[in-house]
Amino acid sequence: MNDTLATIDTPAALIDRSRMQRNIARMQQRMNTLGVRFRPHVKTTKCIDVAIAQRDAGAQGITVSTLKEADQFFAAGFTDILYAVGMAPHRLPHALDLRRRGCALTILTDGAVSACAIAEFGRANGEAFDVLIEVDTDGHRSGIRPDEDTLLDVARVLHEGGMRLRGVMTHAGSSYDLDTPQALRAMAEQERAGCVHAARRLRDAGLPCPVVSMGSTPTALMAEALDGVTEVRAGVYVFFDLVMRNVGVCTEDDIALSVLTTVIGHQGDKGWAIVDAGWMAMSRDRGTQKQKRDFGFGQVCDVNGRVLEGYVLSGANQEHGILSREGEPDTGIAQRFPIGTRLRILPNHACATGAQFPEYHALSEEEDGALQTWGRFHGW
Amino acid sequence: MNDTLATIDTPAALIDRSRMQRNIARMQQRMNTLGVRFRPHVKTTKCIDVAIAQRDAGAQGITVSTLKEADQFFAAGFTDILYAVGMAPHRLPHALDLRRRGCALTILTDGAVSACAIAEFGRANGEAFDVLIEVDTDGHRSGIRPDEDTLLDVARVLHEGGMRLRGVMTHAGSSYDLDTPQALRAMAEQERAGCVHAARRLRDAGLPCPVVSMGSTPTALMAEALDGVTEVRAGVYVFFDLVMRNVGVCTEDDIALSVLTTVIGHQGDKGWAIVDAGWMAMSRDRGTQKQKRDFGFGQVCDVNGRVLEGYVLSGANQEHGILSREGEPDTGIAQRFPIGTRLRILPNHACATGAQFPEYHALSEEEDGALQTWGRFHGW
Repeated sequence: MNDTLATIDTPAALIDRSRMQRNIARMQQRMNTLGVRFRPHVKTTKCIDVAIAQRDAGAQGITVSTLKEADQFFAAGFTDILYAVGMAPHRLPHALDLRRRGCALTILTDGAVSACAIAEFGRANGEAFDVLIEVDTDGHRSGIRPDEDTLLDVARVLHEGGMRLRGVMTHAGSSYDLDTPQALRAMAEQERAGCVHAARRLRDAGLPCPVVSMGSTPTALMAEALDGVTEVRAGVYVFFDLVMRNVGVCTEDDIALSVLTTVIGHQGDKGWAIVDAGWMAMSRDRGTQKQKRDFGFGQVCDVNGRVLEGYVLSGANQEHGILSREGEPDTGIAQRFPIGTRLRILPNHACATGAQFPEYHALSEEEDGALQTWGRFHGW
Repeated sequence: MNDTLATIDTPAALIDRSRMQRNIARMQQRMNTLGVRFRPHVKTTKCIDVAIAQRDAGAQGITVSTLKEADQFFAAGFTDILYAVGMAPHRLPHALDLRRRGCALTILTDGAVSACAIAEFGRANGEAFDVLIEVDTDGHRSGIRPDEDTLLDVARVLHEGGMRLRGVMTHAGSSYDLDTPQALRAMAEQERAGCVHAARRLRDAGLPCPVVSMGSTPTALMAEALDGVTEVRAGVYVFFDLVMRNVGVCTEDDIALSVLTTVIGHQGDKGWAIVDAGWMAMSRDRGTQKQKRDFGFGQVCDVNGRVLEGYVLSGANQEHGILSREGEPDTGIAQRFPIGTRLRILPNHACATGAQFPEYHALSEEEDGALQTWGRFHGW
C-alpha cells in the first residue's frame, strides 16, 4: 500500500512536486533568457530525483559542497561536477580518484597555498586538474578580491604549473541579508561586475578564462543583465523557504518543502498545540529571526499546504514543537487542531530542514495522493 | 589502518572517551548517593556504544524520544525503555508491536484524549500498556499540572481501563534558562516537589504510583535532595556542551563531544581562518546567543582538545566556518593556523551537533590515538 498524507508516519519531509517543478522552470527560463548556462547547487536537496528534474529542465552540470556529494551524484550518472568549496590539500587524492574514474570534476582555489598544493599534487600524479579561482565580490566569506595582485599570481601558479585554469567563480552570499528589489539588483550587478572584472584581468594577462560563474538564489532571480557571465549557480530556489520569502524572491505559495506533523497534545489555556515536529525535524535554523517577519520555527499550513495565517511554530524542543497563534492566544486551539490533526510546517531554511531527514516524500503531481520516497545523502 | 586525528576526513564528530566516562561516573555516583535509579535519555547520542557505557556504570533502563530509537535500542538488547513523548494515537500499533516482541516499553500520556485512546486500543488488543502521566512542573511544554483535576481523571481512565498505571514523570526543561546555583537548586526542588505532589494525589485516591520520575541535566546535577523520587532522567550530561557550561553545570574541560575540522583558507586582513566545519557540521544551534557568554557556533580548541581562549567559530555557512578571535582581529591568523591545521570545535548543543553526523569517532582511552567508529541513528 502506498503511503499517503494520512498514513505516513510523522514528522516527514514533504516535497510538493508541482511547486518544485514551477520553481525549476522559473529559474531555468530566466537563465535561458539571460543567455547563461545554469548549474544548480545540489547541496540544498542532496537528492538524485530532484537533480534529474533540474537536468531535464535544462541545467548543465551540478555544483556540490562536499566530495561525498560528488561521489554519490557521479555514481548516479552526473559527470560534470563543480566542487565549490576551497580545495583542502588533504582531499586531493579523493578528487584525483573521481577524475580517474571519469568524473569531469572542477575544483576551486581561493589562494596561493592551495593553488600550489593543487599544482604540485597534479604534476606528481600526472593529472591536469580543472580549476576555478574563487573571487570575493561581497566580503562575506572566501575568495580573492578582483583587484588583488594575488589573483594573477594564483592563476599563473595553476596555468604555468600545468593545470587547466578554467576561470573564476563567485558567490554573493550576503544577498541573503537584503530585502528590497533595489538592493538585490545592485548586489547582483556587484557580483557580476566583480567576477567579470577578475576574468578580464586574467585574459588581459594572457591567461585562459573560459568560465565566469556567479550566483546565489537572490541574485540569480534579481539580476537584470549578466553580460560577461557564462554560468549561474543557485541552490535553495528549487524549494524556497521563509528566509527567501523575507528576502522577497518568493511567496509562501512557492515553498515546495514542508514538514508533515501530527498534533499530539495541547496546553489549552496557553493557546498551545503540541506537535511532533520539534527542532530535530525543523532544524535549529532561526533564519527569519532578524528579518522583516519572524516565523519562529516555521509557518503552519493545513495538511493540504494552505497557509493558516498567524499560526507559527513558536517553540521547539528536540521532538516537540509548540504551535501557537501570533498575538492573542487561541484558547480554542484544542478544538481547532484536535489530537491526531495533520499539519504542514513551512521551514525557515530548506537546506537545513532537509538535512534533518534521511529521505523526502514527494507528493505526486497526478494528485492521487500517493507519496514517492526520494533518498537524501547524509554526512561526509 | 586505523583512522587517527591526523588522517580521518573532516568534519568528524569526536568523542573524548575519558571525558565521557567521567561525566557518566559523576552523574551515576550522584544518583547512587541520592538513592534514586538513573535512566539516561539516549536522544542526545542515539548511540548503542554510549548507552552500553551508561548501563555498565549502573543506569537502569533508557529514555527515548522516538519509537525508532526504541526499535533500535531494543534490537541492541535494551529492554526497559521509556518513550518520553506524549503518545500519539496513530503510534499505538507500533508500541504494541514492540511490547509483543518482548520490549518492556513504558508510554506517556499528557491528557484525557490520549489516555482514552491508549486504554481503548489496549483493551481492543488485549494489551495492558505500562503508562506514566506527564506532569507539568515548570510550564515550559507539555503535561498536567500537579493540582489539576484532570490528573485524577486521566489516572482513572488508565487504571480502570485496564492499563498498568505506573506513575508520574516530569521534565523541568526551563532549567536550561537558568544560570545560578540558587536558581537551579530552586528549580530542582520545584520539579521534585511538583512531581511528588502529583504522586501523592494519585496514591491518596487509591491509585497506583510506583514510579516518580523527574529530570533534566541541570536539575539532576543541582538537586540537593530527591525525597519521594524513584528515578531521574538526563541526557546531555554524557557529552555536555557550551550551553551547559553557561548554565553552570560543567566547564569547557568536561565537554566530551567536539567537531574535528581542517583549515581550508584565510581572509588574513579580516583575521579570519576558513574551516570545513560549517553549520552542516555544527548544526544551526545558537543556544549560547542569549546566555552569559556567546560562543558563536562554537569554541575553538587545538587538535588535542585544549581550549584556544578567545577563538570562536564566529560564522557558519553550510560547509564553511569562519574562525576568528573575539575582540581585535588576529591578522596573523594565517600563520597561527596554516592551511591543513586540524582543530576541534566544542558545540553549543551536543544533541543538535551529534544529529548532523552519521557516526561518531571515539578517541580510545588507551591514548594510542586510534579512533573507533560508533554508529548513530538518523531520522524517524
